[in-house]
Amino acid sequence: MSVKTHGWAFSPYVRAVRIALNEKGVAHDHVPLALPDLATPQGRALSPFGRVPVLEHDGRRLFETVAILDYVDAAFDGPRLKSGDPYRDALSTAVVAAAGHYLYPTAVMGVFFNQAYILANGGRVDADRLAAAVEATVEPLKAIESVVETLIWLSGGPFMGGPGFGLADAALVPMIQNLSLAEAGRGLMAERPGLSAWFTEAVRRPSVTSTEVPIPNFGLPPD
Amino acid sequence: MSVKTHGWAFSPYVRAVRIALNEKGVAHDHVPLALPDLATPQGRALSPFGRVPVLEHDGRRLFETVAILDYVDAAFDGPRLKSGDPYRDALSTAVVAAAGHYLYPTAVMGVFFNQAYILANGGRVDADRLAAAVEATVEPLKAIESVVETLIWLSGGPFMGGPGFGLADAALVPMIQNLSLAEAGRGLMAERPGLSAWFTEAVRRPSVTSTEVPIPNFGLPPD
Repeated sequence: MSVKTHGWAFSPYVRAVRIALNEKGVAHDHVPLALPDLATPQGRALSPFGRVPVLEHDGRRLFETVAILDYVDAAFDGPRLKSGDPYRDALSTAVVAAAGHYLYPTAVMGVFFNQAYILANGGRVDADRLAAAVEATVEPLKAIESVVETLIWLSGGPFMGGPGFGLADAALVPMIQNLSLAEAGRGLMAERPGLSAWFTEAVRRPSVTSTEVPIPNFGLPPD
Repeated sequence: MSVKTHGWAFSPYVRAVRIALNEKGVAHDHVPLALPDLATPQGRALSPFGRVPVLEHDGRRLFETVAILDYVDAAFDGPRLKSGDPYRDALSTAVVAAAGHYLYPTAVMGVFFNQAYILANGGRVDADRLAAAVEATVEPLKAIESVVETLIWLSGGPFMGGPGFGLADAALVPMIQNLSLAEAGRGLMAERPGLSAWFTEAVRRPSVTSTEVPIPNFGLPPD
């Protein structure tokens, strides 16, 4: 059995899939793939829409994080990462989708990028841009918290899973971790005690810590 | 049992959910909700991320199309819209996600909006903008076609489903229908015979035709 993940290791989407594989106990190889590689013919052959992660399992390829996560739970033995209850599982899928649609553009490409990424790579923080990103993150973070709290209540806690840690946890934790690498992001999280309590537990999992890598350098925006 | 869909009836996301409900034979009420309503406190209470559709089932609410579609198949009796095979079902979920991520911005907000929508509402088409939208749609449409063809081959055709018509069909058909309302979109589809053959069959389903509504008028962009 051969399982490979393709992408850059820092991507919260790539990490979501690797965290889920780790939770299932599925050994896998991570194949580094850089952002510019996706535009090449080889990249397009690997990833039809030019995005990461791509999961390869016995030569068959899958793409789109929400689809790969479902597959990881259904195709491999190990702890169940979905509950089997239609409402809980749909709310969990909604967290996976919402993390990508609303937190990635604001919390990751906004707050993390405009502060933690820039500083880690020797750039200069644009205070206005950072303030706008912080402002844009307030509402989606609050909305995500409300769904996280509902799912934790339904599961009996401390995670959103299945019986324990689940697909929504796997997808959300690397995004919140990126946000929390920025001082401004830690400020936003301090206003969200429910989400912070979940995050403090989730981020300690070996499935999560084993996928941590330093902030990469994909270049800085022009001044 | 009370089932309601909230949103504007023309939205391809709203239609995806209603098509899936129709295929399952689930009677439901459609509650019209206009774009500006989502920003009000009432709108935020209904839809945490300010998007449509929202599905309401016996008072419980769900959001994000990919999550609602899974729920519709799992929670109601009627024909199965997923196959039960992990790889096929993940590819199907990938089509649902990819339609939202890559076709909505290019084929719908690009080609459909800049030609069919503008013309239906008495506006003036910007030839450069339309040409850019057409160009941006070529690659995602080709990539979607390749996945559609794989799924049809795996299912035995003519749809991507489950045993028959499935969730990927429900999500993709209203997006391609919007694209095909534009002359430029019909040109793009003429270059994709595999996708066109699927679409010709899919668009005839009573589940689809019963959700068709005229192009709305949400205002025109300033000249």
